[in-house]
Amino acid sequence: MKIYLDNAMSAPILGEVREAMLAGLEEGLGNASALHDWGDAAREVIEHARGEVAGLIGADRDEVIFTGSGTESNNFAVKGLALARQSKGRHIVLSAIEHFSVLHSARTLEKWGFELSLVPVDKHGVVDPDEVRRALRKDTVLVSIMHANTEVGTIEPIEEIARITQEYGIPLHTDAVATVGTVPVDVKKLGVDALSLSANQFYGPQGVGALWVRKGLRIMPLLDGGMQEGGRRAGTENVAGIAGMGKAAELAREGMQERLSHLLPIRDRLLRGLPAAVDHVEVSGHPVQRLPGNASFLVEFIEGESMLMMLNMKGIAVSSGSSCTSRALKASHVLLAMGVPHEKAQGSLLLTAGINNSLPEADYVLETLPPIVDRLRQMSPLYDKFKKGK
Amino acid sequence: MKIYLDNAMSAPILGEVREAMLAGLEEGLGNASALHDWGDAAREVIEHARGEVAGLIGADRDEVIFTGSGTESNNFAVKGLALARQSKGRHIVLSAIEHFSVLHSARTLEKWGFELSLVPVDKHGVVDPDEVRRALRKDTVLVSIMHANTEVGTIEPIEEIARITQEYGIPLHTDAVATVGTVPVDVKKLGVDALSLSANQFYGPQGVGALWVRKGLRIMPLLDGGMQEGGRRAGTENVAGIAGMGKAAELAREGMQERLSHLLPIRDRLLRGLPAAVDHVEVSGHPVQRLPGNASFLVEFIEGESMLMMLNMKGIAVSSGSSCTSRALKASHVLLAMGVPHEKAQGSLLLTAGINNSLPEADYVLETLPPIVDRLRQMSPLYDKFKKGK
Repeated sequence: MKIYLDNAMSAPILGEVREAMLAGLEEGLGNASALHDWGDAAREVIEHARGEVAGLIGADRDEVIFTGSGTESNNFAVKGLALARQSKGRHIVLSAIEHFSVLHSARTLEKWGFELSLVPVDKHGVVDPDEVRRALRKDTVLVSIMHANTEVGTIEPIEEIARITQEYGIPLHTDAVATVGTVPVDVKKLGVDALSLSANQFYGPQGVGALWVRKGLRIMPLLDGGMQEGGRRAGTENVAGIAGMGKAAELAREGMQERLSHLLPIRDRLLRGLPAAVDHVEVSGHPVQRLPGNASFLVEFIEGESMLMMLNMKGIAVSSGSSCTSRALKASHVLLAMGVPHEKAQGSLLLTAGINNSLPEADYVLETLPPIVDRLRQMSPLYDKFKKGK
Repeated sequence: MKIYLDNAMSAPILGEVREAMLAGLEEGLGNASALHDWGDAAREVIEHARGEVAGLIGADRDEVIFTGSGTESNNFAVKGLALARQSKGRHIVLSAIEHFSVLHSARTLEKWGFELSLVPVDKHGVVDPDEVRRALRKDTVLVSIMHANTEVGTIEPIEEIARITQEYGIPLHTDAVATVGTVPVDVKKLGVDALSLSANQFYGPQGVGALWVRKGLRIMPLLDGGMQEGGRRAGTENVAGIAGMGKAAELAREGMQERLSHLLPIRDRLLRGLPAAVDHVEVSGHPVQRLPGNASFLVEFIEGESMLMMLNMKGIAVSSGSSCTSRALKASHVLLAMGVPHEKAQGSLLLTAGINNSLPEADYVLETLPPIVDRLRQMSPLYDKFKKGK
């Protein structure tokens, strides 16, 4: 049995997406900047996909800029918006639980003289809009708060935060990589000014993303060169990837409700089942305001990575944090910001369901995991200490 | 009849490359950073491709960083190397005919306090190594000179330039997008320190490139975030694109001599044929040191774009400059730097042959073009003026 419960890391592409990529390769063999039929054909593939992506988030087509990943979108947004506005001030505000592509982009800006305020989160990983308000200064030029956190599943109150940033006239960027294509996202309803998304979160290809930037908002390009993407992102376009992203966006929009109905029972079975089956396990993240496929836990007296390895040997793919931290084997900055003690944060376990998963798969995981946890705890010095302390 | 003579803009991908991309999509559905079999499979696809790309340029595997385009590689190299060395100085040296992704990256650095020296070229577009030497200063931290110019085909004396930069201990980056996969390129023989390449120049997919950086040379990431690509380029990898680039690199290495034997007669027929068939046409670029598929011309008393449109109506795809300038309808900075008068530079015509082209296709172009030029000249005020001047 092979069970893939790591959809937040990368959701496997759909057959129709693969077909769209193949068609994109055929039709898009010219350079989209070229002045001939081959160029026109590539351009049409890209513009069709741009319309689909815009449609998924309620945006205008020409506000969507294709990029090479959600990471690039976040780098572009944070650096590009801050640098374009640095004559107005050099202070930016983020939450403490942003993805590294936002957090480290801000750290790079710090090296260049910007100041950074990190807004704390509560024990469920929720950003308090009032904390954002308190962090704002006269020289604040950008606020970046994620729409949802992949590691713990918490969905943030972006609409409320947007009302505050609008009041102060400060642009708000949101990293919506975890939400776009999974839950309904409308840039106008959210009230944000820029929004990052990534195709491989909604069954599109890896290595293609997009940044939506509200019309009229200036952004400094990250990639200088040619006039592609309205002069905002140079480089010959990944036509096949963009075609795939467009198709994935179309399917996500059409299938949203059906997918949600499929995902929620699987997630909820895991969320309820694991703490019932194993002692000293708790759900991390918000109990209600959470991503529909996200089942994240803290398993005490154990290291998340050893659970990963053992589950992998049983054919089950899960994760222990974000795609960018798990190989670094460090305690998650997200969990630490939520006030989880360092030792406990080591036992992070993240199961993310996708449309290919089923309830019997969830049951199989719930049967497979308890003996693994038991065995690992027997070998754990932490557990030994805990038992002696009893 | 459909004839594609715009291979420098984007070379159509090969069937075997498409197959490799499909396999990459199948095998690489996990996230390459994940700690399970799916992640391992994606990682293997990427590392195999990295080996092939390294093999094509005589590099070590771990010196190759995958990017989203040649443009990204150039941005990364110019900004990343200059910023990593700015404590040593803030002066950089480029040639006047660099691709916009190099030139505009340097302009961005200028805004951040760097100084820029542009080395001139001769009438054939050749950089004089002595001019590079003269441009060097005590605070020079980077030299970037392209390996060959796509627009006029001229191959630059990089080995000689590298001997000079080595003497001064200054890193040399070369934009080798036009040469890698087309002519033999060996980073050790060239003596450079960093080198950009792009897959769609050698029949790989669009939207994937690489930067080679000599081991031990520090570079500041352009994309901050996760630990992908040895911490030098964050973002989930474009696995399918990378798989395609690897296959394209393998085929380019194996087929190099055969491809050269195929291309050169086509190029030479065009280079000799067009000036013989049409008055007031000259070859641009170097007569001998030029790219094997590049046939570039200056057609007097005419605008390049109108030739493009007319040829397109006859089913022939050509170009009038670089992919990034042609849609801007401006005179090429490359031709202007070569001393071509502005009026003459408007008549730039670029035919780039690829492995799918044939000699009969070249003959067809040579038959089709002269009446088009005649017709356009009849409508041209420039030609009218010229004739009256006679």
